[in-house]
Amino acid sequence: MAKNSLPTDPADGALLAHCRGIAERARQAAVELADAQTNTKIACLAAIAAEIRAHVPAILKANAVDLAAAPGFGLTDAAVDRLRLDQARIEGIAAGVEAVARLADPVGEVIERRALPNGLEVQKVRVPLGVVFFIYESRPNVTADAAAVAVASGNAIILRGGKEAAASSRAIVDCVRVVLPQHGLPADAVQLVDTADRTAVGHFLAMDDLIDLAIPRGGESLIRRVASEARMPVLKHFSGNCHVYVDRAADLEMARDITVNAKCQRMGVCNAAESLLVHADVAAEFLPKVARELTARGVELVGDVAAQQLVPEMGEASDDDFRTEYLGPKMSVAVVDSLDAAVAHINRYGSRHTDAIITSDHSASERFATRVDTAVVMVNASTRFNDGGELGIGAEIGISTDKLHARGPCGTRELTTYKYIVSGSGQVRG
Amino acid sequence: MAKNSLPTDPADGALLAHCRGIAERARQAAVELADAQTNTKIACLAAIAAEIRAHVPAILKANAVDLAAAPGFGLTDAAVDRLRLDQARIEGIAAGVEAVARLADPVGEVIERRALPNGLEVQKVRVPLGVVFFIYESRPNVTADAAAVAVASGNAIILRGGKEAAASSRAIVDCVRVVLPQHGLPADAVQLVDTADRTAVGHFLAMDDLIDLAIPRGGESLIRRVASEARMPVLKHFSGNCHVYVDRAADLEMARDITVNAKCQRMGVCNAAESLLVHADVAAEFLPKVARELTARGVELVGDVAAQQLVPEMGEASDDDFRTEYLGPKMSVAVVDSLDAAVAHINRYGSRHTDAIITSDHSASERFATRVDTAVVMVNASTRFNDGGELGIGAEIGISTDKLHARGPCGTRELTTYKYIVSGSGQVRG
Repeated sequence: MAKNSLPTDPADGALLAHCRGIAERARQAAVELADAQTNTKIACLAAIAAEIRAHVPAILKANAVDLAAAPGFGLTDAAVDRLRLDQARIEGIAAGVEAVARLADPVGEVIERRALPNGLEVQKVRVPLGVVFFIYESRPNVTADAAAVAVASGNAIILRGGKEAAASSRAIVDCVRVVLPQHGLPADAVQLVDTADRTAVGHFLAMDDLIDLAIPRGGESLIRRVASEARMPVLKHFSGNCHVYVDRAADLEMARDITVNAKCQRMGVCNAAESLLVHADVAAEFLPKVARELTARGVELVGDVAAQQLVPEMGEASDDDFRTEYLGPKMSVAVVDSLDAAVAHINRYGSRHTDAIITSDHSASERFATRVDTAVVMVNASTRFNDGGELGIGAEIGISTDKLHARGPCGTRELTTYKYIVSGSGQVRG
Repeated sequence: MAKNSLPTDPADGALLAHCRGIAERARQAAVELADAQTNTKIACLAAIAAEIRAHVPAILKANAVDLAAAPGFGLTDAAVDRLRLDQARIEGIAAGVEAVARLADPVGEVIERRALPNGLEVQKVRVPLGVVFFIYESRPNVTADAAAVAVASGNAIILRGGKEAAASSRAIVDCVRVVLPQHGLPADAVQLVDTADRTAVGHFLAMDDLIDLAIPRGGESLIRRVASEARMPVLKHFSGNCHVYVDRAADLEMARDITVNAKCQRMGVCNAAESLLVHADVAAEFLPKVARELTARGVELVGDVAAQQLVPEMGEASDDDFRTEYLGPKMSVAVVDSLDAAVAHINRYGSRHTDAIITSDHSASERFATRVDTAVVMVNASTRFNDGGELGIGAEIGISTDKLHARGPCGTRELTTYKYIVSGSGQVRG
């Protein structure tokens, strides 16, 4: 449990009261949002995009404040680049909000309906979760995306962004909060936590009476901290230890192209492949060729004994290697005797993110898809396709490696739950 | 985190190894079960029912062992009665397994399907969760129900029943485990933890690498222990602080009948009403009448000032009263000035279980249903209808007061998740 739940320090007491005020206003806003019509939400999101476009100078000015402070935070050049806004990037942020507005509204969907013999009519209806606490690092565009996804799905959101982007995020949230009441929606549907005090995060994570879901987005240490401290459910994205399994019935040219793409097209992302499994029947033909291709692209390979025998320059893979998400130019390799052995390997070492099979044998891909325990199974396609945009799901607020509630890319639908609405005419139970 | 995760005591190390063996066998069984055909599962459940019927003498003999030990556990007469089996109750257990077999198989349902411009075909398919750890108290019929729900939904289950019913549960699980392999399903799909050592529970709750969901079923202290100790998600059923709100537009006779039924038909259950809210416009007419009816049935009423003025014999309700699930002959009462005030009261004090509105005004019931944060909204019907059987959902393994993953009665569908299966012809990302 959060150690900050009963503060005795008066300053901490004031911070707690401040945080509770934010959460209570979010809770009330959530009740209003649950009632919002689809057209209202769409019009509001369009107006938010327009407001952002109309405030390019103000947003750039705020961004300049963040950029000036960046050296003090010790940001890398790459991080500074992600932080930097310009006219084109702000246009991208506005267009992103409009893209969310085009998604189908999940709220109000009647998932099931049945009439019972006693005259009761039972409806299972999709409803917003309520209040989401979103903790994320740096990039200002995430602030706009998260606000848009929340409004579109009828949820109030409490944004806790990185301090590196504080001024930029504030300028964007100001645009959002001006527009919401113009469409009859509560401004407190979107709130930015305005204290740099890290204790605040602990306070929010203890408020399971007011907050329905916490979503951390950032490095694994952030996610572990939030998962261990939160009293409410946490949408977790742990590592992406993604596999490519080359079956005995694989088209080996396709297998090579997919392996190289899955590993090399962008190495630092969660849906890049980290481990290659090859069926023993095709390993002698396939492995040396693909190893040359990967090595030529700077990838270091480590393998089990059978793989090393086929590719002598390969180092030895430890058990830890098979568990590791390298997020860089390294890949583990194993030769497996059967499809079931590949599945067992993935179910043991994988992170339930994305796993691919390359095969021309339909019964093999069916068996793999059914038995492998992962969010996204790719059959004859690159692991890199697992993201909301590529799968046609739209803007995502995260990719879940959990199995309950939501799995894989999480967009507006994944920020909903359901309730049963049972209508009668005075029925009592006998 | 579980304090038992790194045992140093050799005996505890042996227990941990024993528990891990159970969980690893369950994990492997889950892979096999995920692949099981619907007809196989149905035939297996029918055969389990037959096996139970064929072993009435053995089950009764085991039950006699439990009954003989009952005084040693200090069981109340009511608890001994719930523990006691006879021919009719065993027939009920077998019929319950058959009822589960008649439910639609949730596994394999294609929830969504879309073809993308690049030729990828995306399917979102319903799949079992995997391994469920079920911790429950006493009654032997729960053992059979849980095993049947698990097999029907393609999940492996680890059963940790109350020690009071150990022999009876073992006799029932023996029937299940004999039948499973006869249908090509793994016996280890259903395992009964065979140690009375309570440390074992802590070991299982730490195994988030092997167990996907923990379900505690019993008193609130059991649920709190499991929720605080478990590293995997927990399906929680906390209290049922259920409300009846009598709107200004209520048919007051219907309101009286529903209030009396919701409170009095069976007082010790989670879907019984604990709190009555009455709109100020009808309070003077309604409250004294319903108070007489409730008092005549032995119910003690406590109320806010406005309610006390209308029913002078009513005691004063504290803030705690409004939060309390009495599970007995007591009810809190408040007069509210508006529907929104009723919603605010329920969202503040309720437990998100079941809340009813009595009204003839359709816009009022719609507003209430949308804005109240609860699993089951009853419109002009008794709260007592919230259970799996009454709502047409079938056998339930619990009722969730969580909002994520599953809400309300949890049957076979709620023990599933989904995976994306993406089929291509060699697509790579550009």
